[in-house]
Amino acid sequence: MPGAPERAVGVIGLGAMGLGVARSLLRAGFETLGCDVRPEALAALESDGGTGCADPAALGPRCGILIVLVVNQAQVEEVLFGPSGAVPTLGRGSVVIACATVPPSYAAALGGRLRERGILMLDAPVSGGAAKAASGRMTMMTSGPPEAYAPCEGVLGAVAGHVYRLGPGHGLGSQVKVINQLLAGVHIAAMAEALALGIRQGVDLDALYEVITHSAGNSWMFENRAPHVLAGDYTSLSAVDLFVKDLGIVLDAAREAGLPLTLSAAAHRMFLKASGEGHGREDDSAVIKVFPGVDLPGPKGT
Amino acid sequence: MPGAPERAVGVIGLGAMGLGVARSLLRAGFETLGCDVRPEALAALESDGGTGCADPAALGPRCGILIVLVVNQAQVEEVLFGPSGAVPTLGRGSVVIACATVPPSYAAALGGRLRERGILMLDAPVSGGAAKAASGRMTMMTSGPPEAYAPCEGVLGAVAGHVYRLGPGHGLGSQVKVINQLLAGVHIAAMAEALALGIRQGVDLDALYEVITHSAGNSWMFENRAPHVLAGDYTSLSAVDLFVKDLGIVLDAAREAGLPLTLSAAAHRMFLKASGEGHGREDDSAVIKVFPGVDLPGPKGT
Repeated sequence: MPGAPERAVGVIGLGAMGLGVARSLLRAGFETLGCDVRPEALAALESDGGTGCADPAALGPRCGILIVLVVNQAQVEEVLFGPSGAVPTLGRGSVVIACATVPPSYAAALGGRLRERGILMLDAPVSGGAAKAASGRMTMMTSGPPEAYAPCEGVLGAVAGHVYRLGPGHGLGSQVKVINQLLAGVHIAAMAEALALGIRQGVDLDALYEVITHSAGNSWMFENRAPHVLAGDYTSLSAVDLFVKDLGIVLDAAREAGLPLTLSAAAHRMFLKASGEGHGREDDSAVIKVFPGVDLPGPKGT
Repeated sequence: MPGAPERAVGVIGLGAMGLGVARSLLRAGFETLGCDVRPEALAALESDGGTGCADPAALGPRCGILIVLVVNQAQVEEVLFGPSGAVPTLGRGSVVIACATVPPSYAAALGGRLRERGILMLDAPVSGGAAKAASGRMTMMTSGPPEAYAPCEGVLGAVAGHVYRLGPGHGLGSQVKVINQLLAGVHIAAMAEALALGIRQGVDLDALYEVITHSAGNSWMFENRAPHVLAGDYTSLSAVDLFVKDLGIVLDAAREAGLPLTLSAAAHRMFLKASGEGHGREDDSAVIKVFPGVDLPGPKGT
């Protein structure tokens, strides 16, 4: 197969995004290995023709490219450098594609730490959600040296619909992802304020949705998340706690930059409050539950 | 001409929006009268075939439909009920199409006050900006009784690309417009935070714009306003002071509803700060000038 790496591709973290990526790789004909702490995730991978491994260290010797799709910086550290981490077993010249949303300064430092061990890295946060991961059409915001891209072209083409290439420096991809999360988080919180006000005023929510999505007040998040509130369905596609984390990264980056970001801070407090009130694992649109006395639509059919 | 009113159409307020509306009416064959405090606005109307009038009172006897496109509640009061206001001279059965963004409670009360004098009203805030007004493709968020719509169908069709009909009650149109302004104002301020952070981190702004406009962080306002910042062009299309006013209306409505809207309040403070620092009449994207130590792109060609 043209563009295929000589060795297998590993995926660490077989959650909603990682399992979709692994399946996209299998569909494209790549030998695909994966690991996850949850046995059911390994079983799902194996039922689709992949190979489950016990831990990241077991992936290292067999993979030329390792896609890391865990949730946060602490998990990246664990799966790469922990007691069963992949780095000690990865061969020189291997490439780590680092997809977690992490502080840009951490991504930059990680690239240096891997280089010291002869391992290449792409800083490659992803966007688009589980459905796009499953269909191989994620958006990737990548940066890294040309020699890290070269062996990955086939893999990137299999898992992503669009790969933005933001420059040779590690951290550039993460900077853009963090700014995307700033906007996404604030827009979800703004959607919550808008719908809460509409509900308290007795506005017809379906009409409001129709008008806003055709007006200057629209956002990708309003269009995508307001229907969850209107349907009373907070099944988690992307959870409240994800924005507790990501807006926390935004605020850390802003502090490093000496910038007071009051909207981001206000949105972060709203997600923190929602999480503190027990909604952390619900869909991020559940941030609307922080408003007192707002009679939210119930689930359809009840 | 089918659907034309028996008498002329009047436009009060020939600013960027009102002049566009008057020209759309003229193009559609309506006899069109207008008034504005600025003589140059009257001259512009007359050069296109309309008739300039000295004051709103002069419009009343000649117009069956009066479109009020002034900026705020105080101006609506002045042009309708002030010493030279239109209401005393308007015939019974005339229709006032009230387009200013005003508190929903004011719009509701205004409908009642006009009805007492035998005058019909459409609560009809508009959206879309000067370009869409000029081409007769504004969006209108309307409410009012069927008998107020009936004589206006031809006029609405001439000036608007889309007319949302939100119910018989005055105030419904204004409620939806105010919620649109909540989102629009917060999204502009969020755009400013995102670009400020990007600039301080040294992100390539053109690449950032390309990624965000194809990602979940996108908004109508980011897509439309970020180019003003990137081009260093703060020529006012919609001014900072408009959002000082409109987010003020949002917060008043929220207070009436007993809702703490922290994002809207934070965005309002950003626009207030920008206005206080002398940027009130610049384009609303100039809200980004509130951030300290952010080296904004200069105008192109300098």
